[in-house]
Amino acid sequence: MRAAVMRHSQLVVDTVPDPQPQDGEALVKTLACGICGSDLHALKHADKVVEAARESGAPFSMDIQRDVIMGHEFCAEVLDFGPNTSAAVSRGDRVVSMPMVFRGGTIQAVGYSNDVPGGYGELMVLSAAMLLPVPNGLPTEHAALTEPMAVGMHAVAKARLEAYDASLVIGCGPVGLAVIAALKLRGVEPIVAADFSAKRRALAGRMGAHVVVDPAVRPAFEAYNEARNLRPAVIFECVGVPGILQQIMRSAPLGARVVVAGVCMEDDHIKPIFGINKELNVQFVLGYQPDEFANTLQAIAEGRIDVAPLVTGRVGIDGVPGAFEMLRHPDAHAKILVTP
Amino acid sequence: MRAAVMRHSQLVVDTVPDPQPQDGEALVKTLACGICGSDLHALKHADKVVEAARESGAPFSMDIQRDVIMGHEFCAEVLDFGPNTSAAVSRGDRVVSMPMVFRGGTIQAVGYSNDVPGGYGELMVLSAAMLLPVPNGLPTEHAALTEPMAVGMHAVAKARLEAYDASLVIGCGPVGLAVIAALKLRGVEPIVAADFSAKRRALAGRMGAHVVVDPAVRPAFEAYNEARNLRPAVIFECVGVPGILQQIMRSAPLGARVVVAGVCMEDDHIKPIFGINKELNVQFVLGYQPDEFANTLQAIAEGRIDVAPLVTGRVGIDGVPGAFEMLRHPDAHAKILVTP
Repeated sequence: MRAAVMRHSQLVVDTVPDPQPQDGEALVKTLACGICGSDLHALKHADKVVEAARESGAPFSMDIQRDVIMGHEFCAEVLDFGPNTSAAVSRGDRVVSMPMVFRGGTIQAVGYSNDVPGGYGELMVLSAAMLLPVPNGLPTEHAALTEPMAVGMHAVAKARLEAYDASLVIGCGPVGLAVIAALKLRGVEPIVAADFSAKRRALAGRMGAHVVVDPAVRPAFEAYNEARNLRPAVIFECVGVPGILQQIMRSAPLGARVVVAGVCMEDDHIKPIFGINKELNVQFVLGYQPDEFANTLQAIAEGRIDVAPLVTGRVGIDGVPGAFEMLRHPDAHAKILVTP
Repeated sequence: MRAAVMRHSQLVVDTVPDPQPQDGEALVKTLACGICGSDLHALKHADKVVEAARESGAPFSMDIQRDVIMGHEFCAEVLDFGPNTSAAVSRGDRVVSMPMVFRGGTIQAVGYSNDVPGGYGELMVLSAAMLLPVPNGLPTEHAALTEPMAVGMHAVAKARLEAYDASLVIGCGPVGLAVIAALKLRGVEPIVAADFSAKRRALAGRMGAHVVVDPAVRPAFEAYNEARNLRPAVIFECVGVPGILQQIMRSAPLGARVVVAGVCMEDDHIKPIFGINKELNVQFVLGYQPDEFANTLQAIAEGRIDVAPLVTGRVGIDGVPGAFEMLRHPDAHAKILVTP
């Protein structure tokens, strides 16, 4: 099959062997797969990503000296099943899945594995038990956004929201936009969103933000505190670069909860005394639970989350390396889908 | 009156004017006042403490160019009242109080104020409305430990404990010991405590720790994970120096809650990816609520918290500078009381 392959920290398009479904697995055809910021990071800092995963006890790892086919935000069509496999879906069905394959006692992270390919290739193998059928009428491209939107659903679930909380979303890339959508789904008001990019600010408004701030024009916390009007503060960090957490700790009001949904791979520095004097709570989050993933698909299918504005580009497999370049400029795109 | 005065970052014993009670205030005689680690830090890094308080929005500040009489862990005897003052206590009563005086629209932090003296002097003025009578039969020295023990009660309250949580206390200075006492009061089991000091480890056992570890002999988390036996992890950071938080983030199990009760005034560094991959929660805490302070006094009075082992030394006002020196060696003392 054709695939965009991460090989020695470069993305190359090549022909690679078709994956073979094993016991309990389905062979699927990739219909659409979103490009995630984590993939950009993994390409640039693969060694750090692997080291961090290993040190922090993640249950999987990849060997960056060998090929990896990334892509973990996908919608696919079932082609066939491996031996000894039962499934609630049939050949020809469209499916989404959490990007995890349980194989021979290991957990393979689809998109960060040497053994199973991700969605930047024409074919994948997935654990049959993990497949969720895509409801009729839901466009494939929207179903492919289940994964990134589930990240927002999970971050909001971990925020332990209460009735009168006012929210601030720092950073309106795909993670921030998913958080905004999940906050809107829960009826949180106000949702204040901040980003330096005009395009991302416009998307934040489309996804449900009530107040949108350009921090170059007005401090985000000034706009937030005005909108908040002394209500309890829940702040979502959706940038993921060093220094942001301390900026938030410096500006956050007394007793604020900070949900760290941005994925900062580098060392960071904080001044704990700000956390102490304000009794801040910092909740780091990652991924989603199976029920959150399924609920996100359902919410998208029912139109309670409108993901249409998020798809800002489409490329074939040959276009993946170029799309990675484009995504380094945050003003150009939200989500680019690979459609093999 | 005689007092140990912080003057130009030195502790000097001097005669200073007696404080005068204003509207709503009581004049009290200091009977006993504990020396707190924060005071050691404030003496050494007064400028940093003031800057951190100001930047993080603390509602009070002190001018370190002027005299400050520290001491905020006290038991006192009511001598007199200011004008226009009603109180639930009478002259001659022994009292404790949260170390805050409300004066002319300001909040004065007793012990960190230029305007009201703390407990390292013979006399203090306190807000009459804040005074709590010390129950008959409770020794003065034990009542003076209400404040530091309330810090532990608050830290544990902020931990959002659930039925099967297993706790780890890192650092068994006065804060860690107060946390252990509060955990014991709630029936938490196991309580694992770690400290390099043999004396502190012995006190941790006296206060209620079920497992006591010397990290020089065995990693704290190894002993903790064995005792925990997969139960949810709640970890109390009671050291307050740079690097400890990251050490905990590196070793903590998946989903752990970390309560930061240590007061680290310096810059610190963390690797957020450990927090992210393990979905850690970090709750910074400070001080206590009024009800927690009152409940702590009651718990000490009823013998549900036994503070007797914590008093390891007594000095007069002349002995305060020497006691500060002694407390820089953690193996020598837990709590030294100043008895003017």
